[in-house]
Amino acid sequence: LSFNTIKALVFDTFGTVVDWRTSIIRQLSELGARKHLKADWEAFADAWRAGYHPAMERIRRSERPFVTIDVLHRERLDELLNSLRISGLSEADKLDLIRVWHRLDPWPDSVGGLQRLKPRYILSTFSNGSFACLVNMAKHAGLPWDCIFCADIVRHFKPDPEVYRGVIEFLDLSPHEIMLVAAHNYDHRHARSHGIRTAYVNRPTEYGPSQTKDIQAEDDWDIIVNSFTALADVLLIGGPGKHDV
Amino acid sequence: LSFNTIKALVFDTFGTVVDWRTSIIRQLSELGARKHLKADWEAFADAWRAGYHPAMERIRRSERPFVTIDVLHRERLDELLNSLRISGLSEADKLDLIRVWHRLDPWPDSVGGLQRLKPRYILSTFSNGSFACLVNMAKHAGLPWDCIFCADIVRHFKPDPEVYRGVIEFLDLSPHEIMLVAAHNYDHRHARSHGIRTAYVNRPTEYGPSQTKDIQAEDDWDIIVNSFTALADVLLIGGPGKHDV
Repeated sequence: LSFNTIKALVFDTFGTVVDWRTSIIRQLSELGARKHLKADWEAFADAWRAGYHPAMERIRRSERPFVTIDVLHRERLDELLNSLRISGLSEADKLDLIRVWHRLDPWPDSVGGLQRLKPRYILSTFSNGSFACLVNMAKHAGLPWDCIFCADIVRHFKPDPEVYRGVIEFLDLSPHEIMLVAAHNYDHRHARSHGIRTAYVNRPTEYGPSQTKDIQAEDDWDIIVNSFTALADVLLIGGPGKHDV
Repeated sequence: LSFNTIKALVFDTFGTVVDWRTSIIRQLSELGARKHLKADWEAFADAWRAGYHPAMERIRRSERPFVTIDVLHRERLDELLNSLRISGLSEADKLDLIRVWHRLDPWPDSVGGLQRLKPRYILSTFSNGSFACLVNMAKHAGLPWDCIFCADIVRHFKPDPEVYRGVIEFLDLSPHEIMLVAAHNYDHRHARSHGIRTAYVNRPTEYGPSQTKDIQAEDDWDIIVNSFTALADVLLIGGPGKHDV
């Protein structure tokens, strides 16, 4: 399989580019110390993230109109604070707390890999995050995107077909000229069904040390690697891309 | 007036960032020489661009559904080739010809100014161009955007209010945290009516040596300068920004 025809790399962002869990736990712990709040911040982070899929699913099933992930994060935060009886946070504190999702840190290999790939490829996000979240995260983390493509633009969440068809249409490319880079097998299954090429990057600790899902490639994705360094090697200098996981 | 609260600079692109006329004339002349076609390429470029406003107006008045500027450029190209009886271009030639609008060169001060502004501000396009056009242009011209905001995203053209409200909503900022950079007075009038700050950059030869419109600021825009160099001076080091035009 030759990769010469690929013009754009589109990246799942949460989990694939940024280590949301470590970043959220660290920021929650710092806020807790500052505000003299006690909680199990690891469990809090996991519970916060766990609310995200069911909330998106309601929108995907048309049980409520589209809202951005920032709105969903806020609703889930209020639920969690109530159920854990954490009080003493002002409205400004809560608004700042939502923004922890805009200040996520990249995996150690992400920025270096993206910088190597940027001269050769269009680099875009391909995320269920909000436009504002992804722009702010890029400024925070130094992610050198050429453009931001995300759920808000098509008012649908992955894996709705509107998102995959949307990136093809907005970039005005053929599906086979686009490659999805993602750490999640479901995303690749849908991308492939739309003709988009697939690069699986293994992130086996995205959900912490006891992660059970997406700990390896579950199909013969076009590229299978452990890092953006290896991804850049495959795409730029023909490094091995199937057998290093 | 302090500019400390500004978080994002959003740029009109055609005419403000890139010198579309010189770029189009050069590329048309090159194609003409390659294909042994004779025409007044300056007049061709001007006539091509002149078709753009009436075509957008039909969409703005809801006389036809939204299509991207690439579609409008193609329709106008076919009209022009017919009326000038220019034949001998294949479909591939015509598709390539549309893409001249994706390969526009920046004004000499654009890239340097943007690079200086990038560490401090979110930099976005704010253009009636298509997403694909603006992404390809950024790769061609080295324009360091953080994100691409354009007509396709809101399926409206400037000066429809949906475009101004759209950039406020997508960036999730207050209007006064956003500054429009543009060479066109009409754009600033609409931006200001939505609470967006205004930086006028004078580009008095955008339409060629005999330009009569937009040869100076027509209102007391927040910043008035002759170049992106001067814009960066005003915003980053407090240079003069009202009286150097």
